Amino acid sequence: MKYKFQICFFILFFNASLSQDSIHEGQIREIYDYALNNAKSYEWLDFLCNQIGGRMAGTLNAERAVRWGKNELNKLDLDKVYLQNVMVPKWVRGSFEYASIITAPGMSINVPVCALGGSIPTPSYGLRAQVVEVKSFHELESLGKEKIKGKFVFFNKAMPKNLVDTFSAYKNIVDIRYQGARKAAKLGAVGVIVRSINLRLDDYPHTGNMSYGDIPNNMRVPAAAISTNGAQLLSSMLSLNDDLYFYLKQDCKNYPEVLSHNIIGEIKGSKFPKDIIVIGGHLNSWDLGDGAHDDGAGIVQSMEVLNIFRQLNYSPKRTIRVVMFTGQKNGLRGGKRYAEIAKQNNEKHLFALESDVGGFSPRGFSFEADNNQFKNINNWQNYFKPYQTDSFSLIKKESAISPLRGNNTVLSYLRTDSQRYFDYHNAATDVFSSVNKRELELGAASIASLIYLVDQYGL
Amino acid sequence: MKYKFQICFFILFFNASLSQDSIHEGQIREIYDYALNNAKSYEWLDFLCNQIGGRMAGTLNAERAVRWGKNELNKLDLDKVYLQNVMVPKWVRGSFEYASIITAPGMSINVPVCALGGSIPTPSYGLRAQVVEVKSFHELESLGKEKIKGKFVFFNKAMPKNLVDTFSAYKNIVDIRYQGARKAAKLGAVGVIVRSINLRLDDYPHTGNMSYGDIPNNMRVPAAAISTNGAQLLSSMLSLNDDLYFYLKQDCKNYPEVLSHNIIGEIKGSKFPKDIIVIGGHLNSWDLGDGAHDDGAGIVQSMEVLNIFRQLNYSPKRTIRVVMFTGQKNGLRGGKRYAEIAKQNNEKHLFALESDVGGFSPRGFSFEADNNQFKNINNWQNYFKPYQTDSFSLIKKESAISPLRGNNTVLSYLRTDSQRYFDYHNAATDVFSSVNKRELELGAASIASLIYLVDQYGL
Repeated sequence: MKYKFQICFFILFFNASLSQDSIHEGQIREIYDYALNNAKSYEWLDFLCNQIGGRMAGTLNAERAVRWGKNELNKLDLDKVYLQNVMVPKWVRGSFEYASIITAPGMSINVPVCALGGSIPTPSYGLRAQVVEVKSFHELESLGKEKIKGKFVFFNKAMPKNLVDTFSAYKNIVDIRYQGARKAAKLGAVGVIVRSINLRLDDYPHTGNMSYGDIPNNMRVPAAAISTNGAQLLSSMLSLNDDLYFYLKQDCKNYPEVLSHNIIGEIKGSKFPKDIIVIGGHLNSWDLGDGAHDDGAGIVQSMEVLNIFRQLNYSPKRTIRVVMFTGQKNGLRGGKRYAEIAKQNNEKHLFALESDVGGFSPRGFSFEADNNQFKNINNWQNYFKPYQTDSFSLIKKESAISPLRGNNTVLSYLRTDSQRYFDYHNAATDVFSSVNKRELELGAASIASLIYLVDQYGL
Repeated sequence: MKYKFQICFFILFFNASLSQDSIHEGQIREIYDYALNNAKSYEWLDFLCNQIGGRMAGTLNAERAVRWGKNELNKLDLDKVYLQNVMVPKWVRGSFEYASIITAPGMSINVPVCALGGSIPTPSYGLRAQVVEVKSFHELESLGKEKIKGKFVFFNKAMPKNLVDTFSAYKNIVDIRYQGARKAAKLGAVGVIVRSINLRLDDYPHTGNMSYGDIPNNMRVPAAAISTNGAQLLSSMLSLNDDLYFYLKQDCKNYPEVLSHNIIGEIKGSKFPKDIIVIGGHLNSWDLGDGAHDDGAGIVQSMEVLNIFRQLNYSPKRTIRVVMFTGQKNGLRGGKRYAEIAKQNNEKHLFALESDVGGFSPRGFSFEADNNQFKNINNWQNYFKPYQTDSFSLIKKESAISPLRGNNTVLSYLRTDSQRYFDYHNAATDVFSSVNKRELELGAASIASLIYLVDQYGL
């Protein structure tokens, strides 16, 4: 008798969980169907890229984007749409960037360059000096002041091509861009030229953040990126004539911090309104392209999650918030400010997801979670198998959402196919036409499905 | 004592298998490193697309491609390079294709069309008729002779967008293109216009094979594809005025079969030379683009496998053969002929792999294998995890290698991210610039790694 009871119970339990499973499977199927048939993300991205364009933190165009974002969220009929004030650094590229290799008196070849974000300008008449090529900080240090003083340091380290995860290749090399000017200036260099972080050989210079760190103002030197083809050219010229001169002229400038805004829109939870789930990306972008992949894609995918929920008449149990982060390019300033205000208001963040790896075909998610949480999340993997987005892993990194770390908040990141990302990242090629509609929509559907599961199950 | 012995044996065995594992892991790492740093596939594809171009079966350009393929294989220092004679159908597009919607007397709008492969021409003065729009064969049949006779049938069924695997979406709809003319002709239609099989809305018509089946010559009608934008336009015009006329003019033509060639290159196995492993793709392509994804990618990836083995000084235990199949676009004619000759020569084919899904980011492989074989193959999945190519599944389909079916031969197919495939498939957009170098090379590395494992382990 006892056995029979257990068996009955097991069957009941099994049926219940089976039907719950199939309800979730059905809901996720609807999310994907809606996203692939009716999503607004591609249309939104078109406007953001082609009608607004590049939106550097602190510029008027960035505030045009803020106004657009708020208006679009208002159209989604959310429970609340509001702005948060955030002070952001302002750096402006200026009106000219120009460089050439002077191979002999009166003979020169132009090469494509762009100032690195945060760099000081050259004198208005430009900067002309000899060049020392190095591949690492170690090589730089070993050359020492004597060989560096008065010269351009040309950091010509190529992105390693053999890593399948191109973000690993990026991490491997980004410090040269970020710290190169600081290290070279300490040895008396007059400027630095950094090979663009790009896996292709092409003519597009790729910008990106740099920092002078502890270097006093009067020791700072201009820093520019050179296209990968330009770097190959300069290097081969130097191998023929290491006395040649390089000429650089740029009028970028740092300004005092200015006011910008995070944009927040939310659907209030019907059952646990105090449990907050955040989805976001950074609204700012570099100025060379239109910030289509970085991070227009993340912005419109985040908006799409709320749009899909509204269109499917899904009432979340928990509060779902989209946050468009402002601040430096990766949204850290906006992220810090958002977390600060959340703390002040004693808000409980259950889960935060960032989409900032381009509008490419999604492959899965990475999580910053404890072992138990990750075990629970891994139970959801099967829901994503039919959509080829079931690669789940652990990660820890600094991002727009990482200031929410702590209090059991799970952080999560969309993972996409990364092969093409650095063809566009921080360059003039990061435009709307480089985004594939389906790949973008699949990313949005994947995020919406994960958020749906977090909302249903909690953590 | 007995126990101790068992434990020792277990440890020895465990160590041996561990070190074998790490040898294979190391070798696969080398394969990927070589492919991403030094592969020739992208350069080969550039030549095949930009110097040779479209290579329809039976054309002189197809034979230029044969000569190129043979020459390139000869440069790889293989043990044997040779051709096989294959008779192939010949169909030529001719010199003009033109269509317009005649909205009122003297008023017309041009729409982009292309003849379907195998279609007969229109009269030289073109074909002018009213249009009946249908979405399925069922709808066609239900309209019947009375409503179809003397008109164009316009098959306007869009590719379903909600399927993540776009090849499933293709399978769902391709029969309309293939059989549409046959079915419409039986009801007295004068011609058929088929909506292009393309997930995007754009201006490129997509060609593809069609068949008249059992329809006698005098009942056959011309068949053309219209671009997706053109289909949308025609449909909305028809909704305003269903009496409008459509005008089509094309001078494509079927010719008698001609002689073409499979190209074969092989490295002889050092230990089991009679065990043959085949890797291949189809060398022919449609004529609208350059056949970059379909199937230039498969051709150069197959060549790359032998190149990588040679460059890494890897001497396979078993005979590794690359086959560039000729014949109709999907290589079936060449495949049948290859299998026929293999049978005549009593060759033992252990494994055959086809790459014919575009030069996109690889995701894994599908296999036609029995349960035991598939179980063995699944043990290799872990080798592919670091390269994100570990999705293995079973499949059964007709392909260039399917005539090798039987005798325990395992058939295998590269699987790629399919989101962008139908942006290019059978259209003028299938050109070299639509292929990403890294994605192409990762495909080659994945294939080479699988072939390496088959060679090492057998099946």
